[in-house]
Amino acid sequence: MSPAMQPLAVTQQLGSMGLQILPEGTPVNAPVRADAEPLLADFPYRLSDNVRFADLDINQHVNNASYASYFETSRVTLMKDGANGLQPDGFGWVMVRLGINFRAELHWPGRIDLGLGVAKIGRTSVSFDQVVFSEGKCVASARAVNVLVDQATRKPVPLTDGIKTNFRRWLRRGYDGS
Amino acid sequence: MSPAMQPLAVTQQLGSMGLQILPEGTPVNAPVRADAEPLLADFPYRLSDNVRFADLDINQHVNNASYASYFETSRVTLMKDGANGLQPDGFGWVMVRLGINFRAELHWPGRIDLGLGVAKIGRTSVSFDQVVFSEGKCVASARAVNVLVDQATRKPVPLTDGIKTNFRRWLRRGYDGS
Amino acid sequence: MSPAMQPLAVTQQLGSMGLQILPEGTPVNAPVRADAEPLLADFPYRLSDNVRFADLDINQHVNNASYASYFETSRVTLMKDGANGLQPDGFGWVMVRLGINFRAELHWPGRIDLGLGVAKIGRTSVSFDQVVFSEGKCVASARAVNVLVDQATRKPVPLTDGIKTNFRRWLRRGYDGS
Amino acid sequence: MSPAMQPLAVTQQLGSMGLQILPEGTPVNAPVRADAEPLLADFPYRLSDNVRFADLDINQHVNNASYASYFETSRVTLMKDGANGLQPDGFGWVMVRLGINFRAELHWPGRIDLGLGVAKIGRTSVSFDQVVFSEGKCVASARAVNVLVDQATRKPVPLTDGIKTNFRRWLRRGYDGS
Repeated sequence: MSPAMQPLAVTQQLGSMGLQILPEGTPVNAPVRADAEPLLADFPYRLSDNVRFADLDINQHVNNASYASYFETSRVTLMKDGANGLQPDGFGWVMVRLGINFRAELHWPGRIDLGLGVAKIGRTSVSFDQVVFSEGKCVASARAVNVLVDQATRKPVPLTDGIKTNFRRWLRRGYDGS
Repeated sequence: MSPAMQPLAVTQQLGSMGLQILPEGTPVNAPVRADAEPLLADFPYRLSDNVRFADLDINQHVNNASYASYFETSRVTLMKDGANGLQPDGFGWVMVRLGINFRAELHWPGRIDLGLGVAKIGRTSVSFDQVVFSEGKCVASARAVNVLVDQATRKPVPLTDGIKTNFRRWLRRGYDGS
Repeated sequence: MSPAMQPLAVTQQLGSMGLQILPEGTPVNAPVRADAEPLLADFPYRLSDNVRFADLDINQHVNNASYASYFETSRVTLMKDGANGLQPDGFGWVMVRLGINFRAELHWPGRIDLGLGVAKIGRTSVSFDQVVFSEGKCVASARAVNVLVDQATRKPVPLTDGIKTNFRRWLRRGYDGS
Repeated sequence: MSPAMQPLAVTQQLGSMGLQILPEGTPVNAPVRADAEPLLADFPYRLSDNVRFADLDINQHVNNASYASYFETSRVTLMKDGANGLQPDGFGWVMVRLGINFRAELHWPGRIDLGLGVAKIGRTSVSFDQVVFSEGKCVASARAVNVLVDQATRKPVPLTDGIKTNFRRWLRRGYDGS
């Protein structure tokens, strides 16, 4: 893995943060930008990447689907790195839920900083909190829920204690995984 | 607009549906597939499209970011059709929230049916419920929240009564927009 | 395969066409639009698809990379349809060359008609001529060269007589494959 | 522009190179990999970027359309940097031709080095030679031809002497632009 793709740090868990994240069904009558902004330092797994011209749409800003790829970059880089012990043989991770808050428009060219922290370790699933920062500002945040499935049956299977332990290395600051 | 891109019907609003949609923060410890499945007939704005080979990822199924583009297809086709009166001059729509439930894996080749219904008409925003169906089955559903902004200031502005009235033509069955 | 993805016709080969296609190294000091325009009827394998909003870039026209996906749609739909006998077990097709002439700007929304015809059947490769039409006009044409490789060694292998025969069903009108 | 997106060097033009580039119509019966490989040092405009997971297709290698976006990254970063004086007000660049040689499969994760050099400065067009390197090896090369158009009429217009002079700063080593 190249230097730019290296996770930067495993931070320690500090006190509760109390960030308010909008549930899917909540009407947004004011811009989400006004909400409490996540802190990049609270996300222990971090990468940097370039905004691509190809990420833009006719509005000259990064298209919403490109953010889904940004968030994917963080998740798959974490999950597919064998050193992290999160990808048991014969099993795979299937995304069942992705909720994105778009907090500011993002433009090209520029660098983005990606942060990921585990928010919840379930029986058969894990929930990731993820952020995209540009020039020190959070431009998008997301919660992604992935389920472990048997690759043959495509049915959910329980996480082993080993996997749960390995996920705890990447907890979002202020979260204990429950 | 080509025949295949035509909205199929404006359906009437029937009784309450009570579909349960997962809020972002809810842990998913069982596959979402078990949830109550949306009915395509409840979504008054409908389009069809082809799954593209380019939508697939290394898992040989449609990548999560491609769904974001599927949902975009429905929204922008509705919103940018001048006949619908949803795009006032000098103003634009900015997406602030997208929450997707992935209910089943989708493969290539194949057709998809897209459905959209307005769930909530807010002061400065509108919330869309959206679905992707394949062979009669809901493979993904989403709630998208878009805010009307002044194109010069990029600040949210209130929806006019005219726009609100126009959105009511596309309410999801069982929803009254409040 | 869905109805919309069906090849429309196997046309017969007629007389020589003599279309001039620009070699890669030729400087283009006049727009390619002035060149002799391909005829959709000369391409025996045909599909239709929708332009997607996601195909656009900041110039409000279809981005050049999206055309590469349009051409891919035709090729993989032909090649991966087992009924065509072009995909022998244990072997795969690797693209080694793609040359695209962009003849006109393409906008959204709209339908596109895709045409493909085999131009050359080589020892280990096949060359496809491909076109994208919009409203009866050729907006892009391409030559794609794919090499058959052994999936284990990733080295080129000769086409069998059976594969060559199967490709001859799809010759571009005016071409004999040599 | 971020440090990672900075052009690395304006190299001097040295002697003729005589690299052989396949014309579009040339059958490829042997893998292009055997051809003379371009040297990154011959391309004066250089950037680095990350391969994204989203660039992959079901073959677990970078999809051909993703290369088109890689090449675009180099071109638009050069052209849209006002300091380079290549984008006159009221005019735009339209791509008329893109020919790509795929020389090796590219995988994720990894870094890529992008190189661009001007090969030909025409009356209304410019031809770019472009390369993608991975771990010191050329995995793809391309010639892209862009035409300057009047943004109102969308018709080609002659390059001014000033633009021609500015392009000469970025000639591919061994090329004099004619």
